Amino acid sequence: MSEPLNILVTLNSNYLKPLRVMLYSLFLNNKGERFTVYVMHSSLKRKEIEGLRRLCAEQGNGSLLEEIEVDDQSFAEAPTLLHYTKEMYYRLLAFRFLPDHMERILYLDPDILVLNSVRELYETDLEHYLYAAASHDLISIKEINKLRLNPYKIEAYYNSGVLLMNLKLQRKRISEEEIYDFVENNRSKLIMPDQDIINALYTKRIKSIDEKLYNYDARYYRYYKITSNGEWDMGHVIDHTVFLHFCGKRKPWKKDYSGKFHALFKYMEKLCNAADS
Amino acid sequence: MSEPLNILVTLNSNYLKPLRVMLYSLFLNNKGERFTVYVMHSSLKRKEIEGLRRLCAEQGNGSLLEEIEVDDQSFAEAPTLLHYTKEMYYRLLAFRFLPDHMERILYLDPDILVLNSVRELYETDLEHYLYAAASHDLISIKEINKLRLNPYKIEAYYNSGVLLMNLKLQRKRISEEEIYDFVENNRSKLIMPDQDIINALYTKRIKSIDEKLYNYDARYYRYYKITSNGEWDMGHVIDHTVFLHFCGKRKPWKKDYSGKFHALFKYMEKLCNAADS
Repeated sequence: MSEPLNILVTLNSNYLKPLRVMLYSLFLNNKGERFTVYVMHSSLKRKEIEGLRRLCAEQGNGSLLEEIEVDDQSFAEAPTLLHYTKEMYYRLLAFRFLPDHMERILYLDPDILVLNSVRELYETDLEHYLYAAASHDLISIKEINKLRLNPYKIEAYYNSGVLLMNLKLQRKRISEEEIYDFVENNRSKLIMPDQDIINALYTKRIKSIDEKLYNYDARYYRYYKITSNGEWDMGHVIDHTVFLHFCGKRKPWKKDYSGKFHALFKYMEKLCNAADS
Repeated sequence: MSEPLNILVTLNSNYLKPLRVMLYSLFLNNKGERFTVYVMHSSLKRKEIEGLRRLCAEQGNGSLLEEIEVDDQSFAEAPTLLHYTKEMYYRLLAFRFLPDHMERILYLDPDILVLNSVRELYETDLEHYLYAAASHDLISIKEINKLRLNPYKIEAYYNSGVLLMNLKLQRKRISEEEIYDFVENNRSKLIMPDQDIINALYTKRIKSIDEKLYNYDARYYRYYKITSNGEWDMGHVIDHTVFLHFCGKRKPWKKDYSGKFHALFKYMEKLCNAADS
């Protein structure tokens, strides 16, 4: 049996339900694998952590959960922004909290459904890159973000919802001070702070991976299908896309949602809830 | 452990793939149950039947498959229609081919996804009715069909894709001759012959069941949601609808399909294929 794969999630209680569905879909569609899921948080309750641990063990083929509880002292010098708490630094500085010997970990946002095997991505050769991530190619998004962060000469705007991390290199190259300075100097410009930081400071150190495979934006089914001359139809997405990402403000677990993958999300949510009862 | 539930399907090779998905979804969402699946056909190959039998055994908790092979001699006196083979009589006259002692069976079309437990429907008290079925309530469909079959004074137009059958009573009350006469006399009017026959001859002997639960037309998500004042939103459908029926010409396993439940169908199809390999 191969080594368990390391998964990182960072969250607060608001995202606990979608996180459970994300993990359930990871387990369901990676039946042969085992995982060690690192949960970095500051506000989850004991019962919530134990519920996650049970989900990992029972649905994840004996997968383990490792808790990383963070308090505000951990980011004592970090500047905060109006609408963001210190949680925005978790995925950026996770390497400080993970075991020293760990070489790589796959960070996943909670608003994702995993539809296929993660192994090929997980084993990607990271070479001299700090991260592997996908940029969202829709021209509008790209241009807007490039303009906004213009002084940093970014080539593409990467989405930070799926990040394969080269921890070994991060320990050497990522400076906490540099990040805090960047935030202080760009307060007014930061819209999605953690994502903006990664793009502005590390754009050249990100290995680009295919967004349709590894960070498929669930809002843009038609765009992907048309720009691929029909290749990425629904069957192709279901058979190939690894991470289906519910980007944007409207979320499939909320009342007003509508979209191509709504039924699939609600079905997965139902399976997840049934598995827990 | 309770008795296995009887399921009836009738088909030709063209519908084998969706039939497999339908059965897979039945098993997946009725984990505690066992079924005896009666497959009534004239053209399935040995290998296809054995594949279905394996699906029942492995995914259906040891469910059994019973083959009912029909030849044209079985319907020697039956009139045929231009575009329809004698298969149109299978579900109408299935009681002739099923075991004498059997009291009820649930007929299901192959273009259905089963999303929840069938037991409550299966145990419905059939009283003096020959069938339980759902009428599709959209005014347009109803009015058109009532007009077309006007002389028979039907009250509602029932969809024959989900039929709970009272076999005990059918043996007494359904006359093969009456059916053949009806077909002879209405050749030009019959559009969906088996469904038309059931509606014209037996409308008063059909127990009406809720279409949103037991025969949800996948094309009309918005209609059901609006007419229920929002109650039947996506979460409610996924949690409550037992039979999601892909009515109409466009089918989710075909190339040109598009619809609210497309992703869910393709995902179920993938799970079904993976289970077989």
